[in-house]
Amino acid sequence: MLITISREFGSGGRELGKRLADALSIPCYDNEIIHFVAEQGGFDSNFIAHAGERSMKAFYPGTIASRLMVQPVNSLASLKIEIVSAQQKILRGFAESGDCVIVGRAADIILEDFRPFNIFVHASMASWIERTLARQHDGENLTAKEAERKIKEIDKHRASYRSDFTQTKWGDKANYHLCINTTDIEIKKIIPALVNYIRIWSEKEKG
Amino acid sequence: MLITISREFGSGGRELGKRLADALSIPCYDNEIIHFVAEQGGFDSNFIAHAGERSMKAFYPGTIASRLMVQPVNSLASLKIEIVSAQQKILRGFAESGDCVIVGRAADIILEDFRPFNIFVHASMASWIERTLARQHDGENLTAKEAERKIKEIDKHRASYRSDFTQTKWGDKANYHLCINTTDIEIKKIIPALVNYIRIWSEKEKG
Repeated sequence: MLITISREFGSGGRELGKRLADALSIPCYDNEIIHFVAEQGGFDSNFIAHAGERSMKAFYPGTIASRLMVQPVNSLASLKIEIVSAQQKILRGFAESGDCVIVGRAADIILEDFRPFNIFVHASMASWIERTLARQHDGENLTAKEAERKIKEIDKHRASYRSDFTQTKWGDKANYHLCINTTDIEIKKIIPALVNYIRIWSEKEKG
Repeated sequence: MLITISREFGSGGRELGKRLADALSIPCYDNEIIHFVAEQGGFDSNFIAHAGERSMKAFYPGTIASRLMVQPVNSLASLKIEIVSAQQKILRGFAESGDCVIVGRAADIILEDFRPFNIFVHASMASWIERTLARQHDGENLTAKEAERKIKEIDKHRASYRSDFTQTKWGDKANYHLCINTTDIEIKKIIPALVNYIRIWSEKEKG
């Protein structure tokens, strides 16, 4: 059983993935993947962590960006290929090692041939802002307006990350088995119903 | 508990609505609504039945269409207003009379202030075609190609029907609590999980 979670920032998709994995007693891979990739591939982990969500230049003004100044197109392209190939290798490794939940990283597309159960988690902007403000780091003091800007920016980069792998659109319901709107929902409470749903689907797949 | 089902043609949304209503022991309104409207409003029931799914001209070449030849815009507009207003009245009547499932008719929007649980049911084109061919009427002998054309046409008119009521887009996941992809799913098997999910949501709403 392989479950992928794609999510809008602030929708609680990561929480949903972790709780689902707990309920199924299987591992949930999220940031762990990224660090693993970083170690395997010899990449700077901060770079890898953000490659999917920010533009490279914004994160590496002094290093990558300066390399890009010399050979902008080729360097960027070959760097992306390296990352994509490393991530594919790692994701496949996880999928092959047993049942698991993978949050983000376009795992639904990369692991398509494993026939995963694909969930998209979304919520209303009001609900995103509420969740984002509730889980601010110490010292971070975003206003609602700033939170909204941050959410939009991160989602834009998630969509663009996805487009490195596939022509299918991020968040298009046709690509997922279930799209869950968490706006009015307490995530932990829906887990039993989800487990039930996924088990039924999974039996059908086996049969 | 008010549940609305919007669906792509051939996705099994109507079956899902009926089974869900059975499991909850509440009524499911689908074509019944339309006939009821037709009787109440004094409309020709065949006209009402198709107003949401076909262009009026295509269905009424000799009657409505000829009226439209005289005053095309106003007649069409006032006819639409009459239908919309009659449907709103009927739908509200159903919602006020108790828990129920309503399939189609933009009930999610029309009954928005009842805070319904809104489901969108969709499936891959291959799966639509399979379902559509499986449930052909006697004498109907569609090819897969013809079925695809029919499906696209009906969905186009459903989307356009919706646009009489609202600016929000038909099938946009943001408007629904749950989007269910029935491509790999035997509908009757997922009903218990759905009932569970909706009960959790409904408790949250009450609490």
